[in-house]
Amino acid sequence: MNTTKNIKRTKKVDVPEPTLKRMPTYTMHLKALLQQGVVNISAPAISEELHFDPTQIVKDFAFTGVKGKPKVGYSVVELIHSIEKYLGVDKKNEAFLIGAGKLGQAILSYHALQGFGINIIAAFDVDKSKVDTQYGNIQILHFDKLGELAKRLGVGIGILTVPGSAAQEAAEAMVKSGITAIWNLTPAKLRLSSNIIVQDTAMYSDVAVLLHKLNS
Amino acid sequence: MNTTKNIKRTKKVDVPEPTLKRMPTYTMHLKALLQQGVVNISAPAISEELHFDPTQIVKDFAFTGVKGKPKVGYSVVELIHSIEKYLGVDKKNEAFLIGAGKLGQAILSYHALQGFGINIIAAFDVDKSKVDTQYGNIQILHFDKLGELAKRLGVGIGILTVPGSAAQEAAEAMVKSGITAIWNLTPAKLRLSSNIIVQDTAMYSDVAVLLHKLNS
Repeated sequence: MNTTKNIKRTKKVDVPEPTLKRMPTYTMHLKALLQQGVVNISAPAISEELHFDPTQIVKDFAFTGVKGKPKVGYSVVELIHSIEKYLGVDKKNEAFLIGAGKLGQAILSYHALQGFGINIIAAFDVDKSKVDTQYGNIQILHFDKLGELAKRLGVGIGILTVPGSAAQEAAEAMVKSGITAIWNLTPAKLRLSSNIIVQDTAMYSDVAVLLHKLNS
Repeated sequence: MNTTKNIKRTKKVDVPEPTLKRMPTYTMHLKALLQQGVVNISAPAISEELHFDPTQIVKDFAFTGVKGKPKVGYSVVELIHSIEKYLGVDKKNEAFLIGAGKLGQAILSYHALQGFGINIIAAFDVDKSKVDTQYGNIQILHFDKLGELAKRLGVGIGILTVPGSAAQEAAEAMVKSGITAIWNLTPAKLRLSSNIIVQDTAMYSDVAVLLHKLNS
C-alpha cells in the first residue's frame, strides 16, 4: 500500500512547489472578493492586488484544471472550488497534534487551519499536568494513547509541536501509528522513511534569519 | 543612514541562510545539554543527535567565531553564548505585533520568541472589540497609534499577522513608522523598499503543500 502511495505521489510531484505555495494566497483573496460581491475576475486584476506576475497566475490556475473565458475572466466561485479541490481541502483531513506546550496551544487556537479542511481532533502530551485537560474544545491525552487512537480513527496527519529534542522519537511513534503526513513545526530535522510526507515550518529559523539581518 | 545600514548588511549577507536557519536548532539542543550537566561537546556528538553533517556543524560554528579544542570539543556554555551573540539574541529586540486576530494571538502566546530576545511590547488592531483590551500582559492598541508609538519607542521590528488582503497597507504604515524589519506571517507577498528586511513565514503555504501531497 505504501508503494502505491509512493508511485502516485511521485507522479504528481511535477507541480512546482512555488505554485502550491501561492494557492492559499489565491483562495484567501478570492474569498474576500466573493464577500464583496465580485462574480468574475481576470488574472491581471488579481495580479494588481497580489503582486504576482499575471502569466504566472494563469499558469498556476491551469494546474487546477480551471479555465477562464476571454474578456470575462474566471468565475470567482469556480476558481475557489477548483483550487480547494486541487489542494485537497474538500477531503476529510483529520489531524492529531503532538505536544501541547506553548507552540501546540498556539496552533490549537489557530482556527484558520479549518479553512484548509484540517480538523485537529485530539492533542497528545507527556506532561501529567496537561493530560486529561481540555484546550478550547480539544482533549489533551497521554502520548501513550496515540498509537491505539490513530489506528482506530484512521488519522493520517500529525502536527508536531514537541521540543526539538523530542521530535525524532515522537515522529517515529507517529509513523508507527499509521500517520503518513507530518507537519513539523519543531526545529529538528526528521529522519523518516521516504514514503512519509514531512512539511517543515521552521518558525524559529525564520526568526533567527530576521534577527541576524537586523543586527548585522 | 539607510545607506550605511544597507552597506553593513550587504557585507554580512555572505553567511549562507541554511547556516542561519540551523542556529536555533543548535542553541535549543545545547541548552538541553547544559541542563543535563554536559560541559563539553564534539561536532560528531551533536551530529548524532541532530542529524546534520559533522563537517557542516564545524563550519556553522566557525561563522560565529567560536573554536573547539582537539579531543575536548566545544565548551557548551561558550557555544551557546557565541551563537546567540552571532544571531543578535543579546540585543534589545523590541517588536510590535500588527493584527491581533487568531494568528496574532497565537504568536502573542508563543513565549519561545523571548528565547530569541524578541520582546513584543504592544499589539495593534483596527477591530474596536479588540482595541484597548489586553491579551496576556500585552495591551492591544488602535492601529492609528502605531506611527507615533513606534517612533517614540524606537521599535524596529514588526510582526505582521493581519489578513493577507490588509498586509501591504499595514506593512507600508509600519515602514513609515520607522520599522525596518518585518516578520511576515501573512500569505501576502510584500513590496517594500529594498532596505527593509522582510522575513516570510508562510504557514498557510506549508499546509497547502502538505495537503496536496497527502491527497495526491
